[in-house]
Formats: sequence, structure tokens, C-alpha cells
Amino acid sequence: MPNQKHPHKKSLNEVEGISQPDFINQDSIRNIQKFRRAPLDTDALIQKLLQGDIPSLSKAITLIESTNTMHQQQAHQIIQSCLPYANKSVRIGITGVPGVGKSTFIEAFGTYLTAIGKKVAVLAIDPSSSISRGSILGDKTRMEDLVKNKNAFIRPSASGKSLGGVSRKTRESIILCEACGFDTVLIETVGVGQSETAVHSMTDFFLLLNLAGAGDELQGIKRGIMEMADAVIINKADGDNLERARNAKLDINRALHLFPLKDSKWQPKVLLASAFYNQGIEEVWQLLENYFSLTKENGYFENNRNNQNAYWLKETINEQLLLNFYQNNVIADALSQEEKAVQNNEKSPFVAASELLALYAKITTGI
Amino acid sequence: MPNQKHPHKKSLNEVEGISQPDFINQDSIRNIQKFRRAPLDTDALIQKLLQGDIPSLSKAITLIESTNTMHQQQAHQIIQSCLPYANKSVRIGITGVPGVGKSTFIEAFGTYLTAIGKKVAVLAIDPSSSISRGSILGDKTRMEDLVKNKNAFIRPSASGKSLGGVSRKTRESIILCEACGFDTVLIETVGVGQSETAVHSMTDFFLLLNLAGAGDELQGIKRGIMEMADAVIINKADGDNLERARNAKLDINRALHLFPLKDSKWQPKVLLASAFYNQGIEEVWQLLENYFSLTKENGYFENNRNNQNAYWLKETINEQLLLNFYQNNVIADALSQEEKAVQNNEKSPFVAASELLALYAKITTGI
Repeated sequence: MPNQKHPHKKSLNEVEGISQPDFINQDSIRNIQKFRRAPLDTDALIQKLLQGDIPSLSKAITLIESTNTMHQQQAHQIIQSCLPYANKSVRIGITGVPGVGKSTFIEAFGTYLTAIGKKVAVLAIDPSSSISRGSILGDKTRMEDLVKNKNAFIRPSASGKSLGGVSRKTRESIILCEACGFDTVLIETVGVGQSETAVHSMTDFFLLLNLAGAGDELQGIKRGIMEMADAVIINKADGDNLERARNAKLDINRALHLFPLKDSKWQPKVLLASAFYNQGIEEVWQLLENYFSLTKENGYFENNRNNQNAYWLKETINEQLLLNFYQNNVIADALSQEEKAVQNNEKSPFVAASELLALYAKITTGI
Repeated sequence: MPNQKHPHKKSLNEVEGISQPDFINQDSIRNIQKFRRAPLDTDALIQKLLQGDIPSLSKAITLIESTNTMHQQQAHQIIQSCLPYANKSVRIGITGVPGVGKSTFIEAFGTYLTAIGKKVAVLAIDPSSSISRGSILGDKTRMEDLVKNKNAFIRPSASGKSLGGVSRKTRESIILCEACGFDTVLIETVGVGQSETAVHSMTDFFLLLNLAGAGDELQGIKRGIMEMADAVIINKADGDNLERARNAKLDINRALHLFPLKDSKWQPKVLLASAFYNQGIEEVWQLLENYFSLTKENGYFENNRNNQNAYWLKETINEQLLLNFYQNNVIADALSQEEKAVQNNEKSPFVAASELLALYAKITTGI
């Protein structure tokens, strides 16, 4: 019998007659056990998350971000369980070009909010982070105080190749944060790409940070972003810069009045602040409170959230339908051929499109 | 024999022994022949179109606009045959809010162009025409002179429910007009909707008509449209209005300089004109000539057209992929259910989307 060969290395209780293979010994078993983790108990995680346990919240967000199928199923289950407890916070989008002082502002604003009893979650949306260097919130040391604050939760940007993917992750993270008891969710983005539209579509209030420049107050920020703003905060309005900031306030105010009145009936406002010197922060929150009381009273707040849900339903469908097409290998090859023909005016774009769609129908139906 | 019964009404040569039914007589045959049309000879139509025959051009555009499958096949064939002869004109998009004087401007501008030897086609794109009252070019009497001009071709707006459909028809009409010998194609749209983006994506030059107002020069026109303009023409710059128009010119010029430089390296210009008094029209054409010589030299002109072809290929595919999904009856029913669940926060938009996409995969693959 093999166990007679190594009598001291027998590691498992064996039914008499079933032999232990030669190569199993205590060391390897210890190694296996060391690396084997207890399977995740989703129900327990949900319970702890709903009780406000932050490590569980982090773990749940990690599941949302995972590309592993089993994790995704668990994530779906967690979100479904959290939904009845979500939707009870205010969601604030914060954008501005790099250098405007977003981190400093969020540090000051978030600290103020926790001081008046709020629980603050900070999420970031930045699909470009893989191209630029790292996540915009990656350098957590830029929010030294907030990161240590027990009533604040900071989660760096979800990683992902497509804006759609990052949007989904961020939006589902909001649900989890709310279910975990966070009543104020700040969603940060850089004011240079398409991600603002995504953030605008998942928040109740859209805040644009700006700097006073020399007559170029409207520069750098894309037109459409100014149009989405519910408030423009001119940051670094201190010292030598104060006079310029006051002029910029007038200019931007004039520009904001050119836009048609929003569905919310809210007239966007311009405020001065100096996040570094902690000035004007309270006024920002007062402004937000005015906005929330107006829009909760006139029904826009709830209505907008319902519309946002419907919007994300369609966005997700549309993105996936197009991905299914363009990620098909046969289609990708045919498309690059047709693109050449179309660019050389050998074929009308519409004829080429019909041909590709017919090919796709053939592939998907298998006929 | 039946023909013995009506010996004088015998209408067809008959082989002996095959009887002519009683009820056929000369009158009914004449009626049938009167309404029976010769089947369309596509090849002949193409030949005539390429020789500059305007009735053939009209007929070909009607085929493009038809929803009949046989007509669409003929249209495809015509477009394919015309493509090698197309692409040789300049395509100019013209937009402006209602009341700005687009028809008067196109009448004056088109008449000037024919006077200097150009052949001018005027097309319109207006998907909203079914909602508002009729096509923007429907009232042809507003272009009295141009409509009688043998070097001009005016075609009212293509009808259609979707912007995509109207865009396709307009874009294919451009190809036909060019193959028919028109060297200058004007595409008109109203400056209030999404159709400007479509027109911008099928033209070489984008011209915005504006009026001098009281400080609200930027009003009414959506921000994005101003950003697309290669030139802004302040129309009705005459009489009492001239001073205001001059001030508006300064304001708009300043606004245009805030935008980043275009890929074409062209700095958009502002001009004054009075289409009614036929003033400033020649200057518009000179400006266009400057633009074309700049962009043809720096390669942008051709590059832009190639990109536009690629753009329309993808646009057409994307629109059709989404239509296939949303026009499916089973999906439409399921979608309205899921939308309710999502709006009531009973289900995450992303979970609902996955379910609908799984259902769609099941339907299309038949598994």
C-alpha cells in the first residue's frame, strides 16, 4: 500500500482500501489551503453593505468592475437587492478642465458636508485614464483629509475601455453607495471629453468649475458643457486673482442668460470660491439646497431621475447592439473593405451599408 | 364564333380557333393601353441623366424617394452608374431660423451663380416638414426667377419620417445632380433642429444666415450650429437695419474667434448682405472661392469628403441596427414593460437591458 511507503506523511483520513497517492503531503495541502479562499457569501455581503459597512461596499464595487462572469452575476444580484434602498441621495456632478482645482474643491466641499452631518461618497468617471496617466482620483494624497474621514468614501475612477462601460460601473456604484447609507454622492469628471454628458445623465445637479482668465472665460470648456451647468464656480478667486474672478463672473453670467430656460426652471448661477483657502464653500451648498428644494417641489427632481433610468436603459441597449455588430470578426473584415470602396467613391455609403447589414443578418440567423 | 357576333369589334388578330371572349371590345383595350405605362428603362434613364436631361433627373430622384422595393433596386443601380460622374461639384449647406430670408437669399445667390456660368441645384432637408406645414421649399413661388432659370434645378424637401431617411435621400440626390452636370449644389435646412448636423456632414461649406437683433445675435441659433458655420451672413442689412447689422457683425465675429481653429484651417467670416436688394451676394461667392482654394490646396476638401463617406456608411448601419431592434414587435412590448420597471426603480437599467438583449438574440437566431 502506498501509505506504508510514507506512513508519517499520511494527511487525510482514508477509508481502508482507498490508497493515498504518493505525491500528496502536508506541505502541498497547506499550500492549497492557504490560497483557497472561502467562496463569497453574497447574501452576507449585501447585509453588511446595507448596514453601512465600507469594506463590503468596496468589495461590491470591485465585483461590478470585474469582467468575470460569475462576479457579474453576483454583482447583478447585489444591485437588485440594493435597489429598494438606493435612490435616496443627492447626486452632484463636478467637472472642470485639468488644473482648475477639482481635487482641492472636492476635499474642501466634502469636508464641509461631513461637518454638517452628511455622508459623502466620491466617484470618478474618466474613460480616458488609460490613455492619460492614471485615474484622476488615483492620487488619493490630493484629498488627504477626506480620505481619512470616516463619513467619506472615495473610490478612484472605474477602469474600462469604453465610455459606456465606465458609465455603467459608475452608475451602479452610485446605487451601492446609496444603499450603504451615503446621502451625498459626488461624481467627478474632467471637462474635456464626452464623459460630461454621461455624468450629466446620472446626476441631479451639474457643477462646472472654472478659472478666471484673460477674456477667455469660455475657452477650453466645450460649449455644450457650459449649457449643461446648473452652477459655475469660479475657483481660485483669491488674492490678485479676485478682481479678474469678479469680471469673469459677470461675463459667464451674461453667457448663461443666453441659454433657454432649463426644464428644471432653474436659472444657473455663478459663484466665486477659493477651495484652497476654504472660502465660498458653504455658499455652494446653500445654492444646491435652493436647487433641490425648487426641483423637488416642482416635480423635476423625481421626473428627471425616472427619465435618466429610461435613458440608461436605451443607452445600454444601443451601445451593445452596435458592439455586437462591429466586434464581429467577419463584419470587421468586410467593413474595412467597404470603407475603402466608399472613400474612393466606388460605392455609395448607403449601398455599402445595405450589403453589410445583409451579411450580418446572414451571420446572426445562420441562414 | 364570338367574332361573328361582333364582327366590327374584333380587336386582335386571332389564330383560327381561339375565341375572343365576349366582353373584350375596342373601348376597354384603349382604356387598358392608356393606363399601361412602358416599363422604366433604367439604362436609358441613366444615359439621359448623364447628358443633363432634367426630367430624367427628376424621375431618378423620385425613384430614390420611393418606398417600393423595385424602385429602390432601380435607384441603387442608377446611383452606382452615376457615382463615377459625381463628386465634382461644390456642396454648400445653408441654414438659418425661419424668417431670416433663406428663400430670398437662395433666389439671389442662385441667380448670381447662373449668371457667372454655374449650374445650380437646390435641395432641401427638412424631416420636420410633416409636422409643420409642408416643405420649406414647397412654396416654389418664393423663388420665382430661379425656378424658371434653365441652369437651375430646385427640388423640394424629400419627405420622410426619420432624419436618417431624409438624409439618405438628400445625399443620394446630390450624387444624381452632380452626375447630371450641376456644379454647385445648395442644400437648405431650417436652423432649429438636428438636421443641421446632417447637412454639415454632406457639404463642403456651411453657411449660416442670421439677422441683426437687439443684443441677442446668438439667440435662437443653437450653440453647436454657430460652431459649425464657415461663414455667417447677416441678411436684411439694409436701410434702418444697417447700423444694427454692423454691430451684430462685430459681436458675432468676436464669438466666432472663441472657437478653436477648424481642421480646415479656415477662420469663419461674417458678411453683411441684403438678398432682397441683391447686395453683398457677389462677396459671398468670393468668400466661398477663397475657402475652396484654401481647402483644396491644403487637402482638407478631399479629405473631408472621404471622411463624410465613411461617416454616412456608419450612420446608415447604426440607424438600421437600432431600427431592427426597436421595430421588432416582441421587443417593443417587452421594452415598454422593462421601461416601467426601470422608471419605478424596481430594476436596474443595465439588468433590464441585458434581459432585452438576450430576448432579442433569441428572436433573431430563432434558438
